[in-house]
Amino acid sequence: MLHTPHRGHFITFEGLDGSGKSTHMERLAGVLRERGLEVIATREPGGTAIGERIRAILLDSRTQGLAPLSELALMFASRAQQISELIQPALNRGAWVLCDRYTDSSEAYQGAGRKLGVETVFTLHRVLCLGLQPDLTLMLDNDVAASVARARRRNENASGSDENRFEQENRAFFERVHQQFLTIAHREPGRVALIDTRRPQDAVHREIVDIVHQRLLKDQA
Amino acid sequence: MLHTPHRGHFITFEGLDGSGKSTHMERLAGVLRERGLEVIATREPGGTAIGERIRAILLDSRTQGLAPLSELALMFASRAQQISELIQPALNRGAWVLCDRYTDSSEAYQGAGRKLGVETVFTLHRVLCLGLQPDLTLMLDNDVAASVARARRRNENASGSDENRFEQENRAFFERVHQQFLTIAHREPGRVALIDTRRPQDAVHREIVDIVHQRLLKDQA
Repeated sequence: MLHTPHRGHFITFEGLDGSGKSTHMERLAGVLRERGLEVIATREPGGTAIGERIRAILLDSRTQGLAPLSELALMFASRAQQISELIQPALNRGAWVLCDRYTDSSEAYQGAGRKLGVETVFTLHRVLCLGLQPDLTLMLDNDVAASVARARRRNENASGSDENRFEQENRAFFERVHQQFLTIAHREPGRVALIDTRRPQDAVHREIVDIVHQRLLKDQA
Repeated sequence: MLHTPHRGHFITFEGLDGSGKSTHMERLAGVLRERGLEVIATREPGGTAIGERIRAILLDSRTQGLAPLSELALMFASRAQQISELIQPALNRGAWVLCDRYTDSSEAYQGAGRKLGVETVFTLHRVLCLGLQPDLTLMLDNDVAASVARARRRNENASGSDENRFEQENRAFFERVHQQFLTIAHREPGRVALIDTRRPQDAVHREIVDIVHQRLLKDQA
């Protein structure tokens, strides 16, 4: 943990595609901005000019046979750039950084889903992210079936999405990803809050705001 | 070493820009092809469709503030793709693979030049390249001053080159890179042959052919 009282706060949103990460990230950003806080809302892969070029390679990968280890290295190339260019400077000046996906997604999708092993992901995180961990991770849990169905619909519409490149994977792939997200939540309860999203959006939002208040805002209230 | 009698041979060319790597690689490829051998001549970063897109990001980096750790991850993303898609399949079917730059360049430019540390490079090589080492590395040694001058001329012509993105670095940067190349050659004499290129091109070519014959071809003669 690099967190000190004078730094900002680093919050990540994790979970399967279709769990509402981007919606809830925007709603939390609004709540924090109403309090007069500086908020940076970003995503991975992407978030910087270089990161978005890397993201474009990743989203094209189905037609080009992207190797799993190359995919993983590209994820971390985008992440290292974003830390250096955006996240660390923002945290140093006291801003709040909200990020849609971070290393937990690499652990779930590449480590468990693609079976590259979580140790490989931990090693790259240590070396390329210098171990920077979020202060809080909001793990949005939903049904695997719903995520797979959503990915299929998006595929039929031929639009880009995080999980487009995983759609050729079978149901067992998404089960491994989902299981790893749960494993992370149980392994690191101090950092990760597991949130059931199979409820009305407003109820989920209220729980997120409560968690952020209890864990990060209380001392500043 | 993954080398077995029934595999192909993996030869890399290393050294500062302007040391004649691409010229001597093409000449060696010609000699091997005249013997009826299958030869794959490639380069890093690049060599595959995905790798060339990564290369384009790297060559544009001066204007976009590419972070050193992101640069390193992109180098290894290209390398992992090339190993999976091109190098390993070629070696498995018994071909000769000649590659202009490989992990030694990452150790010299990013590890030593950018001061990321050689251990960081070794770690990524182990994790992302699964430790695949060349059977033979031809380390083409030339003057640092000549390489810097050549890089400056290329910059004035505004054409792309491997070292364009390093041109803003000072002479001390290139001295560190050069010194690391020499360190590698002295550390691993069984793999690396150090070749002085400050001689007529034909003399260098004859030495390269002799080395390849002695180290790799003798048993097949």
